[in-house]
Amino acid sequence: MNRTALIQLIRRKQSFLCVGLDSEFSKIPTHLLNCDDPIYEFNKQIIDATIDLTIAYKPNLAFYESQGLKGWQSLEKTMQYLNRFKDDVFTIADAKRGDIGNTSRLYAQAFLDPFSDLNFDAITVAPYMGEDSVSPFLSYEDKWVILLALTSNKGAFDFQLFQNSEGKKLYQEVIEKSARWGNSGNMMYVVGATKAEMLADIRQIIPDHFLLVPGVGAQGGSLAEVAKYGLTKDCGLLVNASRSIIFASSGTDFAIKAREEAMKMQQEMKILLSRDRS
Amino acid sequence: MNRTALIQLIRRKQSFLCVGLDSEFSKIPTHLLNCDDPIYEFNKQIIDATIDLTIAYKPNLAFYESQGLKGWQSLEKTMQYLNRFKDDVFTIADAKRGDIGNTSRLYAQAFLDPFSDLNFDAITVAPYMGEDSVSPFLSYEDKWVILLALTSNKGAFDFQLFQNSEGKKLYQEVIEKSARWGNSGNMMYVVGATKAEMLADIRQIIPDHFLLVPGVGAQGGSLAEVAKYGLTKDCGLLVNASRSIIFASSGTDFAIKAREEAMKMQQEMKILLSRDRS
Repeated sequence: MNRTALIQLIRRKQSFLCVGLDSEFSKIPTHLLNCDDPIYEFNKQIIDATIDLTIAYKPNLAFYESQGLKGWQSLEKTMQYLNRFKDDVFTIADAKRGDIGNTSRLYAQAFLDPFSDLNFDAITVAPYMGEDSVSPFLSYEDKWVILLALTSNKGAFDFQLFQNSEGKKLYQEVIEKSARWGNSGNMMYVVGATKAEMLADIRQIIPDHFLLVPGVGAQGGSLAEVAKYGLTKDCGLLVNASRSIIFASSGTDFAIKAREEAMKMQQEMKILLSRDRS
Repeated sequence: MNRTALIQLIRRKQSFLCVGLDSEFSKIPTHLLNCDDPIYEFNKQIIDATIDLTIAYKPNLAFYESQGLKGWQSLEKTMQYLNRFKDDVFTIADAKRGDIGNTSRLYAQAFLDPFSDLNFDAITVAPYMGEDSVSPFLSYEDKWVILLALTSNKGAFDFQLFQNSEGKKLYQEVIEKSARWGNSGNMMYVVGATKAEMLADIRQIIPDHFLLVPGVGAQGGSLAEVAKYGLTKDCGLLVNASRSIIFASSGTDFAIKAREEAMKMQQEMKILLSRDRS
């Protein structure tokens, strides 16, 4: 999906909500455990209950790989289902990959290639290994790299704020340097909602790029704060919530409750989007 | 495998060679393509031809994930095979994972859990997200984190040498800080052979930790240089070669040629190990 289509999708649904499909097997409602593929069935029902409110879905690979072969199968089936809604939803492999060029090329093939079984629109990538670890992911048309910049967890303070003699922090260096490897039509950045006050600085470096913002919901970040510093005239944000939506209930009403949580966020987003930013 | 067993293994085989199973489907010898599972068959023959010369095998996940479900199956079968030689070989998932704590815990389960289908001894982890992204991998007894420090690729220069006002570089900060999260019995570091001259500095920070050294062979690093700066009295090195061994020939003699290449390296290692370092 290209940038224009993504912006249109956001305008049409009046939402910039991304639902994280962190579908941990041990948290799947018990009444689904008799299904052939409980994780897929769970994902499908979550998608059906939220797709009109949601512009993106983001399966995190850890929750699938931890189930081995069966987990990979659940992921492929989930993507086959999501890819039926091709222009109606943006898909993100939350994989945080990155390796030497020769190897990243293969990861890119696995997750982004239109002929692959997954065929995601975007993948999250870790920046530590530099340009040749990132650029292979940029070789597919209308596909996106979402590079880790400032993450939502406590460990973000360990290295991401490491600073040079001019006061520039590592995450700023990552954004500045990597922005030259691609453009605002094929790169986004992960910026945690728990660090919303730093969004203003980040908007100085990249005024137009989309930001994927985790940490609203279970991790405690505020949507209003994120919007205050991060929204642009083209929206420029994808705000992710995972556990607070998909595990809102562990009962047979899990999809209804997920919809209620997604609706709350979408309603707030609709108001935020309606404010004039020209 | 614990540190004592690893050191014994190195002494017994007179080798610190790790063979990277970067078994790219398009490079598998054509005569194997009729097998049920060409990648597994290729790996099995490589292992059989080199196991007396090799102390570790390191499948890189990208080459398996790029084949989707079938690739994951090839990986599981390869690990089932390698796990038959439990005390005779150390296994490394070259996965370069790392995510928020709740998620890294699931990756750790996928790759390190003794009851998982993979059950590796070690996994490579990316440091960008800090302590809570790394520590879940340290919760399994006799299992290892191999943290990226200074990688062998060109992109290593983009961020890993980013330096603070005291002249400390990011990779040094990564090593110093993370060394406190574990110890020399459950953490190793990736240090590229193409940066061998920096090994002396690294040995100042971590005199005892094992280093996993890629970049000898196809990427051009020198084994003698690596040994000069990196060897300790307990060896302290695992030197990896991938393509230069496994793809030494693309013909029916691929396993014989792989053995010849592995033998050359093991012979050189035997001499290096025999020098007194007490």
